[in-house]
Amino acid sequence: MLRPLIAFAAGLALLVQPALAQTAPDARAQTAAELRDRALKDPLAWEILEDLTTGIGPRPAGSPAMARAKDWAVREFERLGFTNIRVHEFAKPTWTRGEESAAIVAPYSYRLSILGLGGTVPTPKGGIEAEVVVFGSFAELLAAPEGSLKGKIAVVNQPMTKTVDGQGYSAAVRARSAGPIEAGKRGAVAYLVRSISTSDLNAPHTGMTRYSDAAPKIPAAALGVPDADLLQKLSRRGPVKVRINLASTTRTDTVAWNISGDIVGSEKPEEVVVIGGHLDSWDVGTGAHDDGAGIAITTAAAKLIGDLPRHPRRTIRVVMWGSEETGGSGEAFLADNKDNLANLVVASESDLGGDRIYALLLPKGAVDAPQLAALPALFAPLKIIISRDPAPFGGADVAEIRDAGVPVFTLRQDATRYFDLHHSPDDTLDKIDPVQLNQNVAAWAVLIYLIADSDIDFRALREAK
Amino acid sequence: MLRPLIAFAAGLALLVQPALAQTAPDARAQTAAELRDRALKDPLAWEILEDLTTGIGPRPAGSPAMARAKDWAVREFERLGFTNIRVHEFAKPTWTRGEESAAIVAPYSYRLSILGLGGTVPTPKGGIEAEVVVFGSFAELLAAPEGSLKGKIAVVNQPMTKTVDGQGYSAAVRARSAGPIEAGKRGAVAYLVRSISTSDLNAPHTGMTRYSDAAPKIPAAALGVPDADLLQKLSRRGPVKVRINLASTTRTDTVAWNISGDIVGSEKPEEVVVIGGHLDSWDVGTGAHDDGAGIAITTAAAKLIGDLPRHPRRTIRVVMWGSEETGGSGEAFLADNKDNLANLVVASESDLGGDRIYALLLPKGAVDAPQLAALPALFAPLKIIISRDPAPFGGADVAEIRDAGVPVFTLRQDATRYFDLHHSPDDTLDKIDPVQLNQNVAAWAVLIYLIADSDIDFRALREAK
Repeated sequence: MLRPLIAFAAGLALLVQPALAQTAPDARAQTAAELRDRALKDPLAWEILEDLTTGIGPRPAGSPAMARAKDWAVREFERLGFTNIRVHEFAKPTWTRGEESAAIVAPYSYRLSILGLGGTVPTPKGGIEAEVVVFGSFAELLAAPEGSLKGKIAVVNQPMTKTVDGQGYSAAVRARSAGPIEAGKRGAVAYLVRSISTSDLNAPHTGMTRYSDAAPKIPAAALGVPDADLLQKLSRRGPVKVRINLASTTRTDTVAWNISGDIVGSEKPEEVVVIGGHLDSWDVGTGAHDDGAGIAITTAAAKLIGDLPRHPRRTIRVVMWGSEETGGSGEAFLADNKDNLANLVVASESDLGGDRIYALLLPKGAVDAPQLAALPALFAPLKIIISRDPAPFGGADVAEIRDAGVPVFTLRQDATRYFDLHHSPDDTLDKIDPVQLNQNVAAWAVLIYLIADSDIDFRALREAK
Repeated sequence: MLRPLIAFAAGLALLVQPALAQTAPDARAQTAAELRDRALKDPLAWEILEDLTTGIGPRPAGSPAMARAKDWAVREFERLGFTNIRVHEFAKPTWTRGEESAAIVAPYSYRLSILGLGGTVPTPKGGIEAEVVVFGSFAELLAAPEGSLKGKIAVVNQPMTKTVDGQGYSAAVRARSAGPIEAGKRGAVAYLVRSISTSDLNAPHTGMTRYSDAAPKIPAAALGVPDADLLQKLSRRGPVKVRINLASTTRTDTVAWNISGDIVGSEKPEEVVVIGGHLDSWDVGTGAHDDGAGIAITTAAAKLIGDLPRHPRRTIRVVMWGSEETGGSGEAFLADNKDNLANLVVASESDLGGDRIYALLLPKGAVDAPQLAALPALFAPLKIIISRDPAPFGGADVAEIRDAGVPVFTLRQDATRYFDLHHSPDDTLDKIDPVQLNQNVAAWAVLIYLIADSDIDFRALREAK
């Protein structure tokens, strides 16, 4: 009767309960369980993230900060014992924010909370002043006839739905990415979009937008959520005039880097499991959730595995992608690996902040693979569902290699808070929960170790089904 | 057995249970109960607040917006049937914010979220650039020797404690109000204070600061909370340089107004119960919680009483004070009433936002007054504690008349959220909960009606004890 009592007491004492040894059928599962439990207590991910966000700060691709971040990445890989450290440079145009402001000028004066969208053209010197036309959804703007916004500032005030998986983002983000083209086509002189945010606060959220040669390129900015609501309410009462000033510069002679470091495999070093996060961030906040967390989680998980007495059979490669926010790292990574794709066993990017993982989606056909039979017991105390759905996506920076045939998985994170913070001045270290951060490290360490120390062939499983 | 069953069912059906008729011993209590229940469903407070925040927007004392707000106030009083409408003008210097920015310039570039403090002097053209000295509390700055901050920018990063009664504010606010004097005395060239805020977000919170002739007048601004943390963390690693630009102007030839309207008493019209909120706000956000809510709550409560078939015996006067944020309305109100103080029965200001009231503090000696015997039963369904402590404070704008002998009461509000929002761009209408707003209206209507329809003499009760 003593053993169960002790186990019960230990269960009460620990928030996350280590699996009991007898549930792990072999030494590999035992090692994975030890990795998991070490990860839950390991300060490394937090330390990496604190150093990156405090010591480097925000790091837009192409900025001097990004060059410092690249040097930081190399130093970190060296310090933590990674080998085969590689810095792959690629061409990357750089958009840089300048002074920005916007205000209601009629019927009264009111300073609006705005941030220019990434890639926006500047306004002419002196700004743009015009009447606003406010749409409650992007669909309503799309329904407006050509020419109907001539001389106006188009405003889209479409709210974003908050869900655990962040699916509201793809529904809402078109208003940001496609808004300037669609408003420009209809004659608008500028475009304002309610921040693609699940918060109700006035901090604006930036993010990329696009232009096409088929439409005039008009300046575009994100509005704080209450300010977007105010514009809509006020415009129902009568004409509202807004003045917008956006200064920004674009350079085309700049570069970015994907930086990687390896935990070299002990038996099949040429077979590579690709993980990582993106090192670049927006220029507001310090890129803690987006995506310092991904850098910290995957680096800490790989380092824990690297510290084992014996490296797993296959190589684990942590990639710090250098230009997720403004695109290009995935193409560059594909180009850099085009002769080696068959050796990339599987790939995944951690890029949804630092909150807890609640589900794993494996490549098609892999969920019942005997090499992963220990996963359900290993993941149970981490409260991670092992989904039977195949992973549709492995992260923005592995989309190109996925399209080229590399299998991908997703460790799906709780995104409830993520879109309150990301791309805004509030994406800062204090918003990271160290307990949830370490739950991520534990999940990555367990999964990556099992895959890297196995002979599982995701391509064969995918074809077999 | 039927009656109790019905009462029980009614209790289940309603979130706020109306008191049963038999618990009210007389017609006055019955009327008060009806007022309360009407208030809980009345859209008026919301409508007033929506119109003020949307139609007028932010309204700093001395601004053109405040002149429009004054005209709005007169129109509202007229529209709602108030009489004796009075606009009392008084001299009021006006501080107006100009362009503002601040950034870390070394060891790297980072745009800081700041707002100049109310009353700050501007920086010289071109701004101020200097190394920062960061203190974790105001006490540490006070402990720094004279001359020790020569040529530096002083930063105080003292967090504010969140409590239901908002007591953290008075503990923290000295760092804002007295910081520039104390930093200036010690040689600092500028002053930055962590926003006096209970939020962890980067939106800065403004608020008044002060200067003295005994210390150099140095420019001063509030920092977003994570940015204050970043400065402290970064300064532990080595020297940090910050550049601050603050433009503001001050005029001394401007005026403000206290505007009042009466529900004239039916028997003793010369005896006046003074309630109200302040009409002025800061220039960021739209002053929804601070203090559009107080305006809406007290106006709606008085209007409900004014709609009764018979006005209460005494007059109810709603005052929309015109300069709470930058001071002066209370002095002006005292000057305007100096020959009439004995007729002011009691006074109180609603000025802690729109969240629910949880306690009533009456003037000393009044808690057992027979004229208020119905209060416990009337307040029970509103979940308001009737405290036995005397009210120490009735609001900033009635402090001067309180000091001159006018009794005051406090309807204490839940301030848990208030200091997340106030004085910031997030003090906007969407942060108001209409259910809690109406709970306020109900409490004010009940209490004011009972006092105004009675002969209770708070001065005599105070002396008797």
